[in-house]
Amino acid sequence: MKVVSDKVSLRKARASFKGTVGFVPTMGALHAGHASLVERSARDNDRTVVSIFVNPTQFGPKEDFSKYPRTLEADLALCRKAGADLVYTPATLYDKDHQTWIDVENVAAPLCGERRPGHFRGVATVVAKFFNLVQPTRVYFGQKDAQQAMLLTTMARELDFPLEVITCPTVREADGLAMSSRNRYLSPDERKRALVISRTLHAVQTLFDKGERDVDKLESVMESALGAEVDRVDYAEIRRWRDLGEIKMIEEPVLATIAVFVGNTRLIDNIVLTPKRGKLASRQGAKRPA
Amino acid sequence: MKVVSDKVSLRKARASFKGTVGFVPTMGALHAGHASLVERSARDNDRTVVSIFVNPTQFGPKEDFSKYPRTLEADLALCRKAGADLVYTPATLYDKDHQTWIDVENVAAPLCGERRPGHFRGVATVVAKFFNLVQPTRVYFGQKDAQQAMLLTTMARELDFPLEVITCPTVREADGLAMSSRNRYLSPDERKRALVISRTLHAVQTLFDKGERDVDKLESVMESALGAEVDRVDYAEIRRWRDLGEIKMIEEPVLATIAVFVGNTRLIDNIVLTPKRGKLASRQGAKRPA
Repeated sequence: MKVVSDKVSLRKARASFKGTVGFVPTMGALHAGHASLVERSARDNDRTVVSIFVNPTQFGPKEDFSKYPRTLEADLALCRKAGADLVYTPATLYDKDHQTWIDVENVAAPLCGERRPGHFRGVATVVAKFFNLVQPTRVYFGQKDAQQAMLLTTMARELDFPLEVITCPTVREADGLAMSSRNRYLSPDERKRALVISRTLHAVQTLFDKGERDVDKLESVMESALGAEVDRVDYAEIRRWRDLGEIKMIEEPVLATIAVFVGNTRLIDNIVLTPKRGKLASRQGAKRPA
Repeated sequence: MKVVSDKVSLRKARASFKGTVGFVPTMGALHAGHASLVERSARDNDRTVVSIFVNPTQFGPKEDFSKYPRTLEADLALCRKAGADLVYTPATLYDKDHQTWIDVENVAAPLCGERRPGHFRGVATVVAKFFNLVQPTRVYFGQKDAQQAMLLTTMARELDFPLEVITCPTVREADGLAMSSRNRYLSPDERKRALVISRTLHAVQTLFDKGERDVDKLESVMESALGAEVDRVDYAEIRRWRDLGEIKMIEEPVLATIAVFVGNTRLIDNIVLTPKRGKLASRQGAKRPA
């Protein structure tokens, strides 16, 4: 596994690869969720590239950019074990007066986009840069960041990037907590309370399986379950899966999605709920991530 | 020369090309200025691709999208003669609900960007799509659209597109009028009056060569010369060449740039003025387009 940190070396290493190239962009502080993306890429492609870059333009002024965990040695070991061929660790990636920005307007508007102004603009822009630097055949994102995955799928399609975006299932701890680099911020008490997130999504799944289709009712269940344990519910919503639009009744696949603060740590998680609509429709329906 | 109009055929034709690929994006209604770009590309590269697409997203609601000249047969003949290998003529290029946009903020702010809101956003977005579809080694733009050339050079660099942007000299009619697809809108009287644009730039060059460095004085000369002949001066300004910033005295290369309405037709033109600064500086200075 080769490690490079400047654009010239990256392009040179990339040019030496024959066949298909998979790519996993990350901000480091890697965990088993990232490992599952790298492993999937290594299975699907001749070569796999991972980037590790804590992207300043996707953090708000009051967010955790400076204290975001940096664990490079452990990250490289994980990449090596998971089957990466090349890791790109740029120190910086922007001109001093960088002025080119990409907006994916509708996808970025609600949920995390509404609460973190500029966040998705920074994500879309840095990922477009990586697409052009790495020139991958396939790119892998996690379903845990569902809105981000949808944003980047839309951007890739609408700007005609010559690659395929693949969204992979959320990986969870044994007790249900979705893997996240930010989990390491949690105190033992917060770690315990954070379990309410996956428990709440599980409860919503159960109610849905029993036939509940009323969005207001399901959202009320989410809010009261979360409110009892977390320090602030940022949002707990059910949105149409294909475009994140608001709905009243579930008649097509939806995203049940949560963002909460536990202590000072913001955590997100989600599941997709897919109504069965006869054998044919259910076979052709959107895949439900784990 | 092959002509394709869908993305699948374009990508297939592109994939069959070995070696370097030059690209000239156009809106059709081609003239000798476009021909010079295609010829330059054909000299520089193994293969040359031209796109012909009247891009709706770069026209304002009150602009000339619907009446913009469409002259496909003549355009294809010009491309063939100038040495193109592949011409891409998409009928449409956007999703119905297209929502991904690229802004190059500072470059797009003044001059044409200020007078044509959304214009450069449409230009940057469609050109990024073409970059991803055509995947060229080199791309050619004309100096006549100096702000556009600067915008796309900046976008390519800041988004790390793996290509080189080359800006080529403005091509003029024998009497000095800069070539433009919009010249065909001009009545005989308007055509005659439009000559004031290049005559004014020539006068500015002469004053500059004689030592005039005061921007206010040169802009006054431009405004009064133009005002006597055209129907409206949209702008007549001298701006710092490297970033289009405003200045008072010319101490580094500048763009003298004009946009006017002659009848209902909006015409633009410009020259670069480069102060001599001793032998070394003048050798290393910015190239001055014709």
